[in-house]
Amino acid sequence: MKTHDSPLARKLGAFVALSNSDLGVLSDLFRRRRRFVPRKDMIFEGQTNQSAYVMATGWACSYKLLKTGERQIVDFQIPGDFLGLRSVLFRTSDHNIQPITRVDASELTASDLLSAFQRTPRLATAVLWAASRDEAMVVEHLVGLGRRDAIERMAHFLLELYARLRLVGLADRLDYDCPLSQYMLADALGLSAVHVNRVLRQLRDEGLCTFKNGRVVFDNYDGLVDLAGFDRAYLDHEGPLLA
Amino acid sequence: MKTHDSPLARKLGAFVALSNSDLGVLSDLFRRRRRFVPRKDMIFEGQTNQSAYVMATGWACSYKLLKTGERQIVDFQIPGDFLGLRSVLFRTSDHNIQPITRVDASELTASDLLSAFQRTPRLATAVLWAASRDEAMVVEHLVGLGRRDAIERMAHFLLELYARLRLVGLADRLDYDCPLSQYMLADALGLSAVHVNRVLRQLRDEGLCTFKNGRVVFDNYDGLVDLAGFDRAYLDHEGPLLA
Repeated sequence: MKTHDSPLARKLGAFVALSNSDLGVLSDLFRRRRRFVPRKDMIFEGQTNQSAYVMATGWACSYKLLKTGERQIVDFQIPGDFLGLRSVLFRTSDHNIQPITRVDASELTASDLLSAFQRTPRLATAVLWAASRDEAMVVEHLVGLGRRDAIERMAHFLLELYARLRLVGLADRLDYDCPLSQYMLADALGLSAVHVNRVLRQLRDEGLCTFKNGRVVFDNYDGLVDLAGFDRAYLDHEGPLLA
Repeated sequence: MKTHDSPLARKLGAFVALSNSDLGVLSDLFRRRRRFVPRKDMIFEGQTNQSAYVMATGWACSYKLLKTGERQIVDFQIPGDFLGLRSVLFRTSDHNIQPITRVDASELTASDLLSAFQRTPRLATAVLWAASRDEAMVVEHLVGLGRRDAIERMAHFLLELYARLRLVGLADRLDYDCPLSQYMLADALGLSAVHVNRVLRQLRDEGLCTFKNGRVVFDNYDGLVDLAGFDRAYLDHEGPLLA
């Protein structure tokens, strides 16, 4: 895959028009490719001197374990996302990251980032934008847990994933492949697995959306957007802001 | 106030040892000082071409309004924090920011940031660290709403504020001034005001912490840390990582 076709370049390209020299710096960041197997943490809470990764293929989730043993999934990561960007900037990782499918990712250290920023400060602004977008998603999840009911939360979640996947070329017109189990959805949305099942059935019965056999299909996209109160501004996909 | 004494310099200094030239770039960012009055939004959701701010004095809160009119407070901002960093990188602000007290802040545009990063890429890495730290806090709030009960959530919140305030020189040994009302705590923690009142009384009755007349006093810091399962790693205050 050419650098300019990589999911990260597609994503950053939504914020900043990347020059050939920016793409050259990006492609240096992709040099140390690693492969990870499902269900084995690639970054874990409390780990020090951790690398970060840029995801090329696959799905992962970031989560925290509580002293009760409960798991809260914070977010899912898809191609083009940074894994553990905080871990590389902090001394100690404050969360776990686990591959859901096989994951191919490029390893980065803090000094890789610093030297990339030295070569192209525009890339620094783009990475700051990407990190801000990640934060905006966590904010939406927070608002969801605090103030949205179960069906709105699920609708919002499925719409957000669609917008993210589409940006990196992984969603079709109104559907996408999704390897997430109902248990994972439950741990992300603060619901029980039984509740997740009921909510998905309700979305299907109301003709809004079908999640079956690893595929999400929007049967009534506008209706779902309405139900979720979904506002795409926080994902900001309207084309480069910095020329 | 000298630049190296500013709350932002103190905060970024926890991540990167700032050189005189870094401090010079920072002090240019502080040139356009603005003043804001309490209870009047300084940034609002849906606003375009928004500036960001670096807070010098005061308290503010970032929040989202739902279509039901309910408010979810996402976080509180204190001196040294960026206000609306996402708003300046996104086309459209995805949240509101409102001063709680009088606020003095310096105005920044996206091009101010880009030019600062061009002059010192180390500063770009430090700002990315600060943004990552903000994200880590939102993650903790998410975990709180999803998986912590009311008293753990409150304990965690008061400990986090203390660590943040201490970093910028605004907390004493085991106490700090806090202008937040019980209504604000309720909207941040996903509780009712009555519930907030009950939880604060419980913390006081158990000899852990007293929040009265705008001042938080830790009566038993270690006990509170235990109760909250509070881990300071996500705030990362151990001194410069980048020499």
